[in-house]
Amino acid sequence: MAETCACIIARIEDLARERGLSLQVMLVGSAARSTWLSGDHDLDIFLGVPLGDDLGFALEIARLIAPDHEEKYAEHAYVHARMDGFEVDLVPCYLVEDAARLLSAVDRTPFHTKYVGSRIIGREDDVLLLKQFMKGVNVYGSELKVGGFSGYLAELLVLCYGSFAGVLQAASAWRPGQRLDLEGQGIERHGEPLIVVDPVDPGRNVAAALTLDRMLLFAGAARSFLAEPKLDFFFPPPRAPLSDEELIALLNARGTMPILLEFAAPDVVEDVLYPQLRKAEGSIKALIERSGFSMLRSDVSTYRDRAVLLFEMQVWQLSIARARIGPPAWEAEHLARFLAAHPRPLFGPYIANGKVVVEEARRYTSARDLLAAKIANLSLGKHLAASIRDGHNIYAGYELLGIKDEGFRIFLAQYFRAKFPIG
Amino acid sequence: MAETCACIIARIEDLARERGLSLQVMLVGSAARSTWLSGDHDLDIFLGVPLGDDLGFALEIARLIAPDHEEKYAEHAYVHARMDGFEVDLVPCYLVEDAARLLSAVDRTPFHTKYVGSRIIGREDDVLLLKQFMKGVNVYGSELKVGGFSGYLAELLVLCYGSFAGVLQAASAWRPGQRLDLEGQGIERHGEPLIVVDPVDPGRNVAAALTLDRMLLFAGAARSFLAEPKLDFFFPPPRAPLSDEELIALLNARGTMPILLEFAAPDVVEDVLYPQLRKAEGSIKALIERSGFSMLRSDVSTYRDRAVLLFEMQVWQLSIARARIGPPAWEAEHLARFLAAHPRPLFGPYIANGKVVVEEARRYTSARDLLAAKIANLSLGKHLAASIRDGHNIYAGYELLGIKDEGFRIFLAQYFRAKFPIG
Repeated sequence: MAETCACIIARIEDLARERGLSLQVMLVGSAARSTWLSGDHDLDIFLGVPLGDDLGFALEIARLIAPDHEEKYAEHAYVHARMDGFEVDLVPCYLVEDAARLLSAVDRTPFHTKYVGSRIIGREDDVLLLKQFMKGVNVYGSELKVGGFSGYLAELLVLCYGSFAGVLQAASAWRPGQRLDLEGQGIERHGEPLIVVDPVDPGRNVAAALTLDRMLLFAGAARSFLAEPKLDFFFPPPRAPLSDEELIALLNARGTMPILLEFAAPDVVEDVLYPQLRKAEGSIKALIERSGFSMLRSDVSTYRDRAVLLFEMQVWQLSIARARIGPPAWEAEHLARFLAAHPRPLFGPYIANGKVVVEEARRYTSARDLLAAKIANLSLGKHLAASIRDGHNIYAGYELLGIKDEGFRIFLAQYFRAKFPIG
Repeated sequence: MAETCACIIARIEDLARERGLSLQVMLVGSAARSTWLSGDHDLDIFLGVPLGDDLGFALEIARLIAPDHEEKYAEHAYVHARMDGFEVDLVPCYLVEDAARLLSAVDRTPFHTKYVGSRIIGREDDVLLLKQFMKGVNVYGSELKVGGFSGYLAELLVLCYGSFAGVLQAASAWRPGQRLDLEGQGIERHGEPLIVVDPVDPGRNVAAALTLDRMLLFAGAARSFLAEPKLDFFFPPPRAPLSDEELIALLNARGTMPILLEFAAPDVVEDVLYPQLRKAEGSIKALIERSGFSMLRSDVSTYRDRAVLLFEMQVWQLSIARARIGPPAWEAEHLARFLAAHPRPLFGPYIANGKVVVEEARRYTSARDLLAAKIANLSLGKHLAASIRDGHNIYAGYELLGIKDEGFRIFLAQYFRAKFPIG
């Protein structure tokens, strides 16, 4: 890897020199500080441009370096390519003097590399162990799909607690609101489950992307591991896709009704897609429960070019008759309006607990019909709404057997069989 | 009727004279003041005994008067008999000087008769209209089965508002907490829907037995009647028993699941039985809804020698899998106890919203099975508990068709088809 890096950096420097550009090329991230885990985000090479210069020239050089590249976009454009078997990001950034005065988030990365670089020496293995542990218990990655720990956060934890074991011991006792401040910069922040003050930018919480449940899963796994250390924490057995027979057996044992909404995944990065999937999951859950049905659990996923939302129902069928509770019986005007709005009840109006009630027929007695009828009216994320409008399928119960994709079956295996190493 | 009364009273007076007893015989209640409605409680004849004497002698005379009697018991024993086609109560009581110093509730009755007697003259027809109206809209009767208006209360309302129409007009605007105080005795009372200070005993609320819903039903019916007077308010068409075909059609249209608990009615008076039936209805509703099922409506009834509790379910079937929500994930000791108590979950433990959750199998997935299993453990009224322990049946859905009793079918007709003259 070191060779690949050196080679790429040398070629970038050559091209810059040819063009008379002032460019500071930096290997950043875990690869720069020997805390790089195989399968990690791989190589991050930053092309530092003096403040005031145009990032476009740097981007141009990045394109030349990797002819067979893909252009991506975070806060600004960068180049992603596969080189010598590594995934390489070539990221133009500004050379900022002070990390508190950044132009964009990527400009912060060289400061992280600098801060961790010298301090981590001798504890690289602890970082690697911690990252692999986090990966094994499924809390590694600060992308929105995961909501877990970033590599930089893992490094700071090792710096803070001294070792892999030190991190686990400390994390065992974490509660929501836990606060770490390596440099004692004392910035107050509230409302996030874990607050880790960024040593190079004290206004920023390094753990801002970490969700409460991932934080607590890590803490619980740390407790379990210390009580009974096993290799499985680092390398859990891979999850095999669910077979038809297994799915049938699970549905029968659980006696629930799974309802699946399936559609083409919009062509956007996961950090855009997943928040929209989660938002849709919440909107649909609210719709369904507001109507009297009851959900046990739900999840979202993507596989191949498809996206799915899975809702597992405890109550998916309701009576036709339902009660509409109206105003207090003595409010004559409200009552007249209420009765005018419900002219042909199945039963009533009658009085119960001082209020006028009518019983009338429900429009949708099954959760599936409700979802099918209302999906078009829900407020969904922009890309998701368009994709669902273009076409979607709803599967319920054993109809899930119709989807044979391995990726979908692995998602089902995870949904129905995941083990969480807590307690 | 007057003849029957005069004859009975004369015979009682003779018997008392023969025995040298001082007895004041009084016709009380509506018959005494020309506000007696056919089908009413009929004749109340009180045998007044001077304070300090023994009520036993009066009871003995009552027994002799009506050889073919039934002995009943309220606060003390009295005799009930059918004489000349009337239902007659012969009630020993004390002759108390001051209604505020009663020995028992029956001693108050002569004071009511005296208070209403002279004042109601010329307005007897208004009382009769009001009582028949109350009967027609099903709010007449202060017994606990009904929780409606007593005859004395109807009389006081006419005295208070001057006429039948005056009562309806006033009642149209009633709200819970409405207070009437004919003699301006100014006793404060709260928490009851209607407070009518008893003119002969100001510490007592004449409307104490009136439930909120019956009060509001009367008020709503008064509003409706004034807006559109019809004879039906006084004489609603009788409710025919539900046929098999009608029951099937209703169950199909409502798409609900009726669950019926049926058993021998304990041999106690309705004022003892109905509170126990209502209490059992509440306990079973709480049990069923606590377990995740959902009830639309319920009611209780008696027919022949049977008692029934009817529960109409909106959700009567649940998934096998259910979530058990445990302690916050960071409370390690609670968590250990929670996990020990749920050793073999279907799924989990996992973390959701900061709490540890396991999914396990429900013991009862149908409301009927739950009721069948738990009915023996519920805290029920004394007589009901014994009767249910001796034997009971549970019917669900179309199984109700198996009960052919006319009384039961009239109850079903009332339950599914009653019209309430409000709005």
